[in-house]
Amino acid sequence: MSRLIAVAPDTRPEMHAAMCGAVDAAGGRLVDPQEAEGLVWADPSRPDLFPSVVEGADRLEWIQLPYAGIEPFAHHLDQRWTWTCGKGVYAPAVAETVMALALALSKNLHGYARADRWSKPVGRYLADARVTILGGGGIAECLLPLLAPFGCPTVVVRRHDRPVAGADRTATPDLLPELLPETDLLVVALALTAETRGIVDANTLDLLPDHALLVNVARGRHVVTDDLVAALAAGTIAGAALDVTDPEPLPDDHPLWSEPRCLVTPHVANTPEMGLDLLTPFVEDNVRRFLEGRPLLAPVDIGLGY
Amino acid sequence: MSRLIAVAPDTRPEMHAAMCGAVDAAGGRLVDPQEAEGLVWADPSRPDLFPSVVEGADRLEWIQLPYAGIEPFAHHLDQRWTWTCGKGVYAPAVAETVMALALALSKNLHGYARADRWSKPVGRYLADARVTILGGGGIAECLLPLLAPFGCPTVVVRRHDRPVAGADRTATPDLLPELLPETDLLVVALALTAETRGIVDANTLDLLPDHALLVNVARGRHVVTDDLVAALAAGTIAGAALDVTDPEPLPDDHPLWSEPRCLVTPHVANTPEMGLDLLTPFVEDNVRRFLEGRPLLAPVDIGLGY
Repeated sequence: MSRLIAVAPDTRPEMHAAMCGAVDAAGGRLVDPQEAEGLVWADPSRPDLFPSVVEGADRLEWIQLPYAGIEPFAHHLDQRWTWTCGKGVYAPAVAETVMALALALSKNLHGYARADRWSKPVGRYLADARVTILGGGGIAECLLPLLAPFGCPTVVVRRHDRPVAGADRTATPDLLPELLPETDLLVVALALTAETRGIVDANTLDLLPDHALLVNVARGRHVVTDDLVAALAAGTIAGAALDVTDPEPLPDDHPLWSEPRCLVTPHVANTPEMGLDLLTPFVEDNVRRFLEGRPLLAPVDIGLGY
Repeated sequence: MSRLIAVAPDTRPEMHAAMCGAVDAAGGRLVDPQEAEGLVWADPSRPDLFPSVVEGADRLEWIQLPYAGIEPFAHHLDQRWTWTCGKGVYAPAVAETVMALALALSKNLHGYARADRWSKPVGRYLADARVTILGGGGIAECLLPLLAPFGCPTVVVRRHDRPVAGADRTATPDLLPELLPETDLLVVALALTAETRGIVDANTLDLLPDHALLVNVARGRHVVTDDLVAALAAGTIAGAALDVTDPEPLPDDHPLWSEPRCLVTPHVANTPEMGLDLLTPFVEDNVRRFLEGRPLLAPVDIGLGY
């Protein structure tokens, strides 16, 4: 039996078309939001349109969001509806970006890219580096196999210490004071919640060894930016690569742009083309599950906020 | 039975000390070159000293060179002696650098490192990229396991088409005209010989697709630099990362320093500290083999030149 699915808003034509294609391919019947039982949100940058889109959508049961981290939508979350998001969908892309950033820091590629002459050889191995990953979700799951051939001892830090496949160890956040001094590479791959906001602050950075490297591919607000600026300037950590920043975008005059130990990338762990290629088959799968009454992928826990 | 081993020259004290330590640990007796049966060459930058060091060394049988590629020593090679080198020794370090450079090009990290403001998201996956590796030696052997979790289809091009563990396919160089148009990432990991000098020339670059990326971690003269400059400027390939250049060091005013599609690193695939850490246990092993009359590792084929 088919069901009635809306794709909205239509402010981003390429994404709207891709999502309509996914609904259609899954066998859903495309309708306006006011008639819809399911809604696929098709513009991550316009959560502000949500109230007007769902006004009068009395048959609505399920909303599929396009985000991995749903905080732009957090204030619209409503227990009346079942919410799913894109968590895990972009994880393979983000994990690859972690590898790129970690290797770039290890090999001083950010320094050499800025050089206009031959300079002294510096750099070190990623192999055997002790890696601590904050977050036990999809990014960690996809990152661990990429790290495996480098032989890095890995610890995943998560709320529960349920083991993560491929990690040498799983630990809860209360163990961070012991783990951080033994960390060569700290990867932030968490959902952003009230608990995890600012988790990388002056205290965390002080606990890391001076040679430690930081990679953040989660959300800018996991890192207290001013504390990181100070740590990099003082050399109390050796480098940071940030695909996300706070504020984001990072202002033109921000000191991180000229910090030699820092590499900033403009939230490119998944570029729009890359992301849509990953999201489209995922949404098709979830629409098919909705039609068939099977459990939906990537359900949002409104209480936890991810 | 112990044997008499010299370590020379002593122009690079840290390396000299490390090599003496290796000989000692293996049970060799350290002597001057004039008495020695074996000689460990302890300064890669001073092949010019070789004739005076071996003058009067009438008992010499074996010479251990510190290089992966022995071309700085090529004119001293002499069939009177058994030569070994460091081929394969640095391969794990170089393979890691290939991953760093390939991921950096894929994610535009060279571009972002040079940016002083937030810019548009560009970048693509290394995952699933079709990788062609020129050279079936230690670098390819170490690189293939690092690439494995990315799911890249791999072809190794070598003189003989003996399979390389972990490669999807092995091919001889005559197949390059078919392989290059199907290559997303071309990795140069060859020994430098008369046959391989200039193997990446205008013709090779033309055969690659416009989106192709080039990584050279072998020797600068594998690539015809002017042809590469032209291809990058014209956009007939999308990017190049060079850990080795021709000339090397690359002069300050060279156009590659300001080419947006290019990332130059100053021959850092193994930094001196990293390299010595790898070479020392290897030399210890080879000295032990020499003492015990077992086959030596990394023998140089004087005819082939590597």
